[in-house]
Formats: sequence, C-alpha cells, structure tokens
Amino acid sequence: MDAESVTLQPQKLIQRERAGAAIDVDQINAFLESSPERRDQTQELITELVNDPILKTDSSYYGRSKREEREDTARKIARLALYMEHDIKTARNHFKGRDLVEELQKAESVDLGGDMVPLTNADLAIFDRRLSLLHNMDPQVGTRLGVHLGLFANCIKGNGTNEQIHYWLHERGATFVKGIYGCFGMTELGHGSNVACLQTTATYQAKSDTFRINTPNLPATKFWIGGAAHTATHCTVYARLIVDGRDYGVKTFVVPLRNPETHQLLANVVIGDIGQKMGRNGIDNGWIQFHNHVIPREYMLSRFTKVIPPKASGGKATVRTQPQLDQISGYSALLSGRVNMVMDSFRFGSRFAIIAARYSVGRQQFGAPGKPETQLIDYPLHQYRVLPQITVPYLVSPVAFKLLDTYYSTLDELYKVSTPATFDKAGLVLVSKKLKNLFIDSASLKATNTWLVADLIDQLRQTCGGQGYSSYNAFGKGYDDWVVQCTWEGDNNILSLSSAKSILKKFALSIRSGAFDASLDSESFSYLEPGFIRSVLKAGPDTEIPLKQLSDYTRVWAVALVKFLNHIARLVDSTKDLDSVAKLLVLVSKFHALHSMLKAYYEKLNSPEDSHVTDAVSKEALWDVYKLFSLYFIDKHSGEFQQIKAFTPEQISHTIQPELLELLPKVRKSIIPLTDAFKMPDGMINAPIGYFDGDIYHNYFDEITKQNPTEVDGAGVPPYHGLLTDLLSRGWEFDHALGGSARADILKKLGK
Amino acid sequence: MDAESVTLQPQKLIQRERAGAAIDVDQINAFLESSPERRDQTQELITELVNDPILKTDSSYYGRSKREEREDTARKIARLALYMEHDIKTARNHFKGRDLVEELQKAESVDLGGDMVPLTNADLAIFDRRLSLLHNMDPQVGTRLGVHLGLFANCIKGNGTNEQIHYWLHERGATFVKGIYGCFGMTELGHGSNVACLQTTATYQAKSDTFRINTPNLPATKFWIGGAAHTATHCTVYARLIVDGRDYGVKTFVVPLRNPETHQLLANVVIGDIGQKMGRNGIDNGWIQFHNHVIPREYMLSRFTKVIPPKASGGKATVRTQPQLDQISGYSALLSGRVNMVMDSFRFGSRFAIIAARYSVGRQQFGAPGKPETQLIDYPLHQYRVLPQITVPYLVSPVAFKLLDTYYSTLDELYKVSTPATFDKAGLVLVSKKLKNLFIDSASLKATNTWLVADLIDQLRQTCGGQGYSSYNAFGKGYDDWVVQCTWEGDNNILSLSSAKSILKKFALSIRSGAFDASLDSESFSYLEPGFIRSVLKAGPDTEIPLKQLSDYTRVWAVALVKFLNHIARLVDSTKDLDSVAKLLVLVSKFHALHSMLKAYYEKLNSPEDSHVTDAVSKEALWDVYKLFSLYFIDKHSGEFQQIKAFTPEQISHTIQPELLELLPKVRKSIIPLTDAFKMPDGMINAPIGYFDGDIYHNYFDEITKQNPTEVDGAGVPPYHGLLTDLLSRGWEFDHALGGSARADILKKLGK
Repeated sequence: MDAESVTLQPQKLIQRERAGAAIDVDQINAFLESSPERRDQTQELITELVNDPILKTDSSYYGRSKREEREDTARKIARLALYMEHDIKTARNHFKGRDLVEELQKAESVDLGGDMVPLTNADLAIFDRRLSLLHNMDPQVGTRLGVHLGLFANCIKGNGTNEQIHYWLHERGATFVKGIYGCFGMTELGHGSNVACLQTTATYQAKSDTFRINTPNLPATKFWIGGAAHTATHCTVYARLIVDGRDYGVKTFVVPLRNPETHQLLANVVIGDIGQKMGRNGIDNGWIQFHNHVIPREYMLSRFTKVIPPKASGGKATVRTQPQLDQISGYSALLSGRVNMVMDSFRFGSRFAIIAARYSVGRQQFGAPGKPETQLIDYPLHQYRVLPQITVPYLVSPVAFKLLDTYYSTLDELYKVSTPATFDKAGLVLVSKKLKNLFIDSASLKATNTWLVADLIDQLRQTCGGQGYSSYNAFGKGYDDWVVQCTWEGDNNILSLSSAKSILKKFALSIRSGAFDASLDSESFSYLEPGFIRSVLKAGPDTEIPLKQLSDYTRVWAVALVKFLNHIARLVDSTKDLDSVAKLLVLVSKFHALHSMLKAYYEKLNSPEDSHVTDAVSKEALWDVYKLFSLYFIDKHSGEFQQIKAFTPEQISHTIQPELLELLPKVRKSIIPLTDAFKMPDGMINAPIGYFDGDIYHNYFDEITKQNPTEVDGAGVPPYHGLLTDLLSRGWEFDHALGGSARADILKKLGK
Repeated sequence: MDAESVTLQPQKLIQRERAGAAIDVDQINAFLESSPERRDQTQELITELVNDPILKTDSSYYGRSKREEREDTARKIARLALYMEHDIKTARNHFKGRDLVEELQKAESVDLGGDMVPLTNADLAIFDRRLSLLHNMDPQVGTRLGVHLGLFANCIKGNGTNEQIHYWLHERGATFVKGIYGCFGMTELGHGSNVACLQTTATYQAKSDTFRINTPNLPATKFWIGGAAHTATHCTVYARLIVDGRDYGVKTFVVPLRNPETHQLLANVVIGDIGQKMGRNGIDNGWIQFHNHVIPREYMLSRFTKVIPPKASGGKATVRTQPQLDQISGYSALLSGRVNMVMDSFRFGSRFAIIAARYSVGRQQFGAPGKPETQLIDYPLHQYRVLPQITVPYLVSPVAFKLLDTYYSTLDELYKVSTPATFDKAGLVLVSKKLKNLFIDSASLKATNTWLVADLIDQLRQTCGGQGYSSYNAFGKGYDDWVVQCTWEGDNNILSLSSAKSILKKFALSIRSGAFDASLDSESFSYLEPGFIRSVLKAGPDTEIPLKQLSDYTRVWAVALVKFLNHIARLVDSTKDLDSVAKLLVLVSKFHALHSMLKAYYEKLNSPEDSHVTDAVSKEALWDVYKLFSLYFIDKHSGEFQQIKAFTPEQISHTIQPELLELLPKVRKSIIPLTDAFKMPDGMINAPIGYFDGDIYHNYFDEITKQNPTEVDGAGVPPYHGLLTDLLSRGWEFDHALGGSARADILKKLGK
C-alpha cells in the first residue's frame, strides 16, 4: 500500500461516493425546495448572491471586529435595497416607462388614488426569498434588515390605520428601504416577554395635542433594539398610554429618533450601543431612553385604540378602543419572525450537514494495519453522530414551506376581513381561530427547530474534531449567530409552554366534549380527533412490532402524544397545578413539532404530484431518511415512550434500536448525494473542509494562509516579541534586579 | 403596590435571600475546596489574582481582536513567571541568601551535584493552584502556559533520560519559564488521535550523527500547535524514527524553532498562524513544516528508545528500545491535561452557576395582577432548568480533588520505580495497573464533565434570556472558550469509547473468572465486584421504592451500570461486533463518571473528618444537592434505566419524578447561599448580572456604557453614516441616475 496516495487525497474518496451514487440529486432538490419552479428560482438567486461582490462572503468574514461587521452589514443592506427594486420590477415584468417604485409609493394613498395596483405580498416574494437565502450566508444582514422590514413594518401594519400604514410604509418609503429606517422598540432592560408590564410612558398632553414619551427609570430603558445604535431614524415604541392620569396599558407609537438626512440624534432622545454580543455583531443593537420627547398625537398607531382630543369630544380627551381586535394584532406582530425561523432552520441546518458529511467521508483515522485508514463515516458511532443530524433539515423542509404558505394565506384573509371596506365579523372569528392554531404551530416549530439546529451545529462541530473549532470552518460563528434564535422573538421555553398549554386545552375539550373542528384542526392537530384519542386510550399495551407501514413512523408519535397528554392531564387533575408539569409540557410541544414534521414529510413524499420524485431509488432513500429521523428521536425520548407505555422496554431493545442500527449503513451509502442535493455552492457554505471538490486539506490550508499571511501576524518575529525575549532572558540576577530581595552579601551588611 | 420600589431593585431580593439563609457558607466552602487549609490558600490566591493589574479581567476583556488577545495573554504569562518564582520561595520559605531558582536549576545536575534538595511537585503546588484558578478567569492564559509547563515538559519527563530532563527543564530553565519556551508537536493536519500514523519523519544521518526532520506532505504539517505561531523556541516533535531505511514508529525529539534571544525563526523551519478560532484566540496556535531541519542525535528523547551511532556499535547504527515502558510513558503524557480539565469543570461550572442563580433571583417576570412580578426562580420550570445545573459543580468537586491527588501520588510512584537508581520491576507492574485505572477514570471523567459543563453554560445562558447573549455576561466567550475541552487532548467520544471498552473488559473478567483486585479496584470500580454483580443479576425487578437511604442514590447507578454492561455484553455476544454498541458504550462511560462523582461526594460528606461540615442544616442542604443530582440524571436517562429494567415505568412516574419535583423548591431556598459558597469574587465572575450585590440592571448598564462610550461607537452619527443617508435618500430619479433604465420620454426617443 502506498500510504500517501490514499491518505492524502480525500477528494478521491468523495468522488468515489458520487460515482457510486444511484439517487437523483435534482429530483431530491426539487423535493427539498418544494417544487421545480421554486428550485430553479432558488438556484438563480443563490448564484446571484454568491457572485455579488458586496453580498458574497469568504474566509475574511471570520475574525472581523464589531465595527467592521457593522459597516459591512450596512453596505450589504444598501446593496440589497437595489436588488429589492429589481425584484419588484421582475415580479411585475415592469422595467420600462414610469418608475415603478414611485408609482407604488403613491398607489395606496387615499388622497392620491392612482391607477396602479397596490403592492402585494406576491410583488415581494422574490425579494423575500433572496433575503431568506442571504440569511444563510450572513445571518446578521437578514436580521438587521428584517427588524426594519419585518418587525417595524408589521407593527405598523398590525396596529396602524390604513392611512398610517400608507404614510409610514409607502409614502415615506419604509417598505422600499428608503426615506426612513425603522426599529422595533418593545423590549426594555427590565422586561422582555411580559409586554403588559413595560414601563415606558406616552402621556397625552391636551394643550399641544401631543404625547410626551418618557423612560421613567433605568430598567425601562428600551434595550436590545436592533438598528437603534446606528441605523434607525424611527422606532415603533411600545409604551403605556396615559390620558388624564389614567393608564390604558401598552400601545404602539411611531417615534422619530434621528434626522434621516444627517443621521443626527434628535433632542430628548438618548441612544447607546449595547456593545459586544455572543454573535451577530453586525447588528447595531442599542438602548434608547426618552426624556420628555414630544410626538404628535397622530403618530400613535390607532387601528384599534384612538385618543380623541378634547376639542372634538367636548372638554376631556377620551380613549376609544376595540379590545378584541387589539388582541388579534398581538398575535400577528411576532408571527412572521417565528415562521421565518423555521425556514432558516432548514437552510442553516443543511449548511452544516453538508460540511460534516463531506468531512466525514474525506477524513480517515485509525483502521486495520497495512490498510488505508478508515473513513470516519464508516465507524458506526460516527454514523450515529452524523446521519440523524443530516435528516433534520430534510424533515424541516416540508413543514417550513407549508407553514410559510399558511402564514401568508391566513394573513391575507385577516387583512381582508378586518379592513373596514370588506369587514366580515364571521370571517374574523374564523381567521382568529386559524391564527390561534398558527400561533400554536409556529411557536412549537420555532422552539423545536431552533433547538434542533443549535444541537445539530454543536454535535456536527464535534464530529469535525479540531478543524471544527477553527473559525474558517463556520461552526463557531454559525453557532454564536444561531443560538439567539432560541431566545429572541419568544424564548423557546416560554413558547413551548404556551403552545403546549393550548394543546392540553384542546385535548381536554376533545376528550370531554368531543370538540374537534375537522376543517381547522385536521392538519397538525389530527391526533386530537376524539375517535383517535378513544382508540389509543382504550387499547392495551401493544406488544406487536409497532412499525409495519411507512405511515406508522408518524403514527407512533400521534399515539405517544395522546398517551403523554393523558398522563399529564391526570397529573394536573390530582395536583391542580399546571406549573408542576411545565417540564413535561415543554416536551409535549417538542413531540407536537416532531409529529408535524413527520406528517408533512410523509404526506408530501407520499403524494406523486407534491413530491416531484419519480425515481424509485431516490424515493427509497428519502423514506430511509424519514424512518431514521423518527427512530432517532424515539430512541432519544425512549424514557417518555416507555414511561407512558407507548413502547415496552423489549420493543425499544428489539425493534427501535436494532432498526435504527440497520438504517445507519443504508443511509450512509447516500450521504454525499443526500447532502449534494441541498445544492449549496461553496460560496454559501464558506467552510473549506466542506467544499464540493472534497480537497479538504488543501482548501483549508489555502484559506488559513490567505487570512494569516506570514508577514503580518504569523511566524518570524511576533509584534510583541520584546515581551517574550525579556521573559526568557531573566538571568541569575533577576531577583536582585527586580528589587525583590538582596544578595547574601548585601543582607549580611544590612543585618549587622 | 408601588411597582417601582419592587420591580427595580433586584439587589433587595438577593439581600432578602441572604438574610433568610440558614446554611453555613464557610463550612460549605471548605467542603467544596476539600479542606479548610486549601480553602484559605485558595481565597488568598484569588484575592491576589483579581487585584493584580495585569492578571485581572474586566468587561474590556470581551470584544478584543485576536492580536490584542495574543499580546495580553503573553503579558499575563510574563507576569505569572514572577509569581512562580515567588510561589516556589513561599513553598520553601526561602527568601534570603542564595538565589533559589539558580540553585534549583543546578540541583539535579548529574555533573554539578549541589546540596540543594531538587525541585519537587510540592514546591510547585502553590503555583499550580494559582494557575488553575486563573484558568477560570482567563482560560487562554492557562492553556498557553499549560502547553509549555504541561505538555512540553511532561513529554520530556515521560520520554527523556534523567540527563535530558535536567538539561531541558532545569539547566535551560523551561520549568521556571525562562531560557526556552516549548510547544508540543504531536497533532498533524491529517492526524489527531491516531498518533501511530503521524507522518513527520526524523531520519538518522550517520555521517553527521544527526537527525533530519521533514514534513513529507501537506497533511503531515504539524497543526494546532499551541505556542508555535509566536511564542515557542523549542518543540517536542512526534516523528517517525527512520534508521537505515527502517521505520521504527513514532518517537519524540526536542527540536529548536526560534532563537530565544531574538525570537527569529531558524532556517528550514516554516511556521504560520492557524488564525481565528471559535474561542481562546489568546493562544497562538500555529502550523509547522520542517524542510531538512537538522538536529543533533542527542536531542532525541531516549529514556526508552535510543539510537546507537555506528562508531560505538561497529559499522551500523542500531536502535535499542524498551517497548513495555514506552507504552507506560504514552499513558502519562496526556493524563495531566485530563486530570486538570476535571478540576476546571468544577471551577468554570461554578462561575456560571453563580451568574444564573443571582439573575434568577433578581429577575422578575409575569405574575399575579396587582402583585410584584414573580421572581424567575419561583417558577417550577425555571427551578428545573437552573437548580440541577448548580448541583453539577458541587458533584464535580470531590471527585476532582480526589483525582488530582491520585494523579500526583501515582506519578510519584512511577518515577520512583522506573528510575534506574530505584528501579523496581514488581512495583512497576503495580503502578502500570494503577495508571491504567487512572487512565479509565480520567478519560471518563474528562469526557463526561467537559460535556456537562458545556451543557451547563448553554442551558444557563438560556435561562438569562437576552442578557445571557450579551458578551459582557460571560456566557458567549465562556462557551466558545470551553467547548474545545470536549475535543482536545482526547476527543470526548474516543475517550468515552476507550474507557468503556476497558470497563466492559473488566466486567467480563469479573463475571467469568471473578477477577477483581480489591486493592486496586475498590474505588471507582467497586460495582464490578463479583459478588455485587451476581446479586444484581440474580435479583428480579425491584418493585419497591428504590431510594430509602442516602447511599441508595449512588447505589442505583451501580446497579444500573451492572445491568447496562450485562445488556451490552449480551448484544456483543450475539453480534460479535463491539462497534455496533459504540453508542451504548459512550453512555457506559458517562454512567461510570456519574457513579464516581456520586460515590466520592457521598463518602466525603458522610465522613465527619473529610466533609468539614458540622452544621446540621448545611449538611442537609448538601444532601439535597446530592439527591437532586442523582435524580435529575436518572430522569434524563430514564430511557436506559427502564430499558435495562433498573426501574419500572411506575417507579419513574411515582418515585423519581415526584421526588425530583419535591426537591426543587427545597434546594431553591438555598440557591443564593449555595452559590455564594463558591466564594468567587466579582473580579473572577466578570459578568455584571451575576455580581454579589445583585444590583443587576445598574451593574450591567454601567459596564455597557463603559465599554461603548457614546462618543466613540454609539449614538449620534455612526462612522459610516454616509452609506446610510445615501441609502435612504434615493429619490424618484434613482432608477435613472443609476443607469438601470431610462425614463419614458427617453425610451420613446430611442424606440423611434
């Protein structure tokens, strides 16, 4: 054996896998991207992104200072604004004649009218996808712009009158990233999730018909506000509405912060940078304090709550409010972010799946003497560590696309039924229920998938050994950027608890009164159908092999959910304390999400028109992925499965674990095509041990020497070498020279 | 209710906890620090560290560039060298007369003799402890110096002749951080754990009686070498010994890299910086390539393997080797690091336990209307998330001190029996067995505890919400610095596998032939005693309450280990494939470690002279910590416990989980004193939401504004504001101005 020819050419090992692959990477990519059309568009957008001189990322991306990251991110946002106009034109096929953006800015104005069709979600679909893809290469850009386009704009859309929406978002240009730039002033230093207890005040002043915005104490400082430190000219501030000394609770206000022409801070506004963060330092999170900052009454977002000045109502200011609608708007404000985080989980997870897969095939270590060393992926333990993680983005994809589509269609409905012109009370009740379900699903999926991907990055980094710890291989920054997704826009534990409490309530209703709305609940809540619940709870322990059909890999989760909910309901019945089962409820939310993922995947792959997979071998590989995911998480949660008697110890030992072990070498055979099928180019992966050609060592070494040229920071004489030579050259006389103690002869003299 | 007076004064909440605390913080600290003497010394050293102007850390520590971190770390090492001389003098009470270091440098010289007692481990005990404590404040300093004092020096001690040890470590000064600075050249780009396949060569050249060191290809580049990029003047290189064309396998060589007086690289040595890492950027990890670099034959470390030049043996060079001893030295090289990482797990874990505990008490969120908001720690879910994590450093401490003591005593024995003057063959056999056990224990404890603490940091960060994501609260850098411990000096999975395989072998021997050495195995392997194994395997499933006595909380783990090993042994018997149970073996190693931790804790607390705890209330609190730890991990692993029938589903539902839930509010009562008992000053915690006074919001805000002064990087006009104003001021004519498309009137003209 010529050791060198084998050990040192990981690219040959990866090529060998591709040559031996029988599955159709294109079909699988269409499955992952939800349709051939979406796949083609995605590939086009990715090609544009990785070739754009400003948007692209390379190894210089790792190791920048906070200030550099801030500036780079701002530059990328300015670049994206150009793409946005281009994307809207593409959606409308409008590249000539009147300036499209100018027309759209006017289109919805009540006063101006205009014959242009107003901007719709469809016009923004290409750009939204572009931004979502960029998020994968550089999460901080997506978020810094997302705060403006998502949180700021959605707050106005959810709480503003039509005229306010038109003015701030269209006339002033916010929707097109021009004119003004917004941030979202909800969180305070002392309050995050508990919005109702925010302490910033907006006090109505009848004499000038204005509000005075104030930060009454240090914990009331608006905190973590993305975009506040540098970018934002305006902020949607959550503040207590005080009229005539009465506190009407927390409402929203558009508050100017900076002059958009000079970016100078306005009087009475104090802003600071909250500084270094674990990740996403490209986002200029800041803190804001207001000291008697005055804004016109009309800047209060007044779709549901309005202050009527004294002169109109005679003598005293009054407050008019529609509490029911107010609450609905509360649901929708943070939904967008949660829905997008599920899609991010798919893309961001797949990036690290690719890196770890290619490294596991190219890297060799140990093995039989006299033979080439074994590829890491051929060790059963390594297969167990890598392959189930690769199934995660596969199982996220179908549910992520489905959730996104449901989100947009539900929002369209909401705007339709709640707009004065087309107001529909019955429709509103229905949409509220849909929104409530969407809230449960998105909360559970956001929490579960952001946790799954955090774990995926961490586990897969460890499978890459030392190279995984190098910044240039993306895991470090990837993790640091990612994990905030587990905390922001609804802490994962709080979200899980709240969605599980709703599920438990649905369960109780179904079991007690047979309440189940097939038109609403048939999707992710199908396991709550009263007949199904009865059949599960009636049946004795199943001692047969529980996994006969493909659908059983989803069904066991439905069974487990029913048994688990029943177990919890009994505990609560006896203790009357919902808090004491909180830890179990967090798991219910996870089980609910895993079940939804398996169900969406099963239904998609099982449907010829939805799956776009005709090749039998590819289909089988996709079913293996599905089985592996289900088995891996059953095994992970075998404690709960046994405790609630969904499985016996023997079933775990004789069915689940052996079948899991058998699947691993099967899925292992397709590891390279399965990860190639994500079709992510090197420019998006940005981790040399995971590049397509598999030439791990050369690719990695090239990036290291590129980013650390010997002349600047490397070998030879380090910049601070004086410190080192002084250290090492301490001689015998060191003690004396440093004044620490005197030599024996001196001490003798002194002691006389 | 005056909301402000309650909500905004977290410090009052923390003071209230202290006022109500009944446990004796000093006694518990003595328990944690292993004895009152060690406790006092530790407190003295900590006070010196946090007050030293160069060694102390503050919030400026977060957010430094790689280059700044490198220089700061080097400065701290230079400072530590002064403390080291001071600490040796303190240990000897020698501050006058002859220069102690000068004498010690000569003391062991074979030629010089001298009447000074040579340097012992006891002389370095104070400094070792100082360094271990500093590691907690700034892990990169500890490691950067640790590579020199630990890896480099231990490699020489383990493989060098007495003369070589004296020359390099004493005469040249390495032990005293003077003269030369060493790095440890084992890992290559292409090989980590598999040392036997390293590819660097050391070819003997008879004509000049030298070795030629070569890097034959890119993957043979020495990689990740700590200290190589900037600091090291010498390297202990692992290279294949080639004599007369024959490959004798990997041996060790002391190879000069730089001139210690100028720090310039030597000819034929190429070194580069490996650049940005996920954490620990203060360590100058580098890569090294050798191109015909020539060193004297005498620089080969020759305790066990020696090249005899031709003239001495007549005609041809020969190689003399002692393979048995060679292997023993292999054990000891990396042991020190693993043993120290267990101690680090105690200290580093306790730091984050304190931060999360204080935040959980001071932070309020939600609650009943009209009442002060609820403290986070009063939510059962929060108790479940925080309290078991706090028990982790408690349970690590006793085993960490014990392991450290065993390590030093075993090493002392080894040097005694293997030194030519006192050579003892029977003793050597015994010490080899002890070393082998120490290897199993340290591997299992290193892997388990570095994983536990990685999880602890991650979980506790999430309990601090957004503030946990701020760099100034230590979690981000703490995690990034910490997780490499799971990979280096033995990847956790590899270590777990290897220790579990040894345990499985011991189990098989015990069950088959009753082999159990009570004098060696009575400590951490006590569950392998043949009688105990028989009794466990004979007994039917225990349906009684399994936790009657305090010792039972350890015993259930011993029972589980036996059942688990038996389960695995049967699987291996039927499949004949050890690899297929690898995933289970990793868990065996974890169970072994958890059992050792519980056992060491139980024995210490149960012994009045060892525990130093006389106060009954404190003792009870410590027992609650012990129970909580055991129950929490049983519940975490309830899948395995049920599968192997250590517990029935009913026992999990009716004993384990309810008792766990009952313990939480009990331990919660002492959360502040239990974390105060770590006695870690603010200067060591370096996270304002975790400072002693509990004034969370002011402390945190103060650090943020200190590190981000408004004038420099904060509000007002950001440095790159032109970019933002250009973005926002795009007007109607934007399309045209950018050349994208022409106005309608121009198109009309062009189209004619």
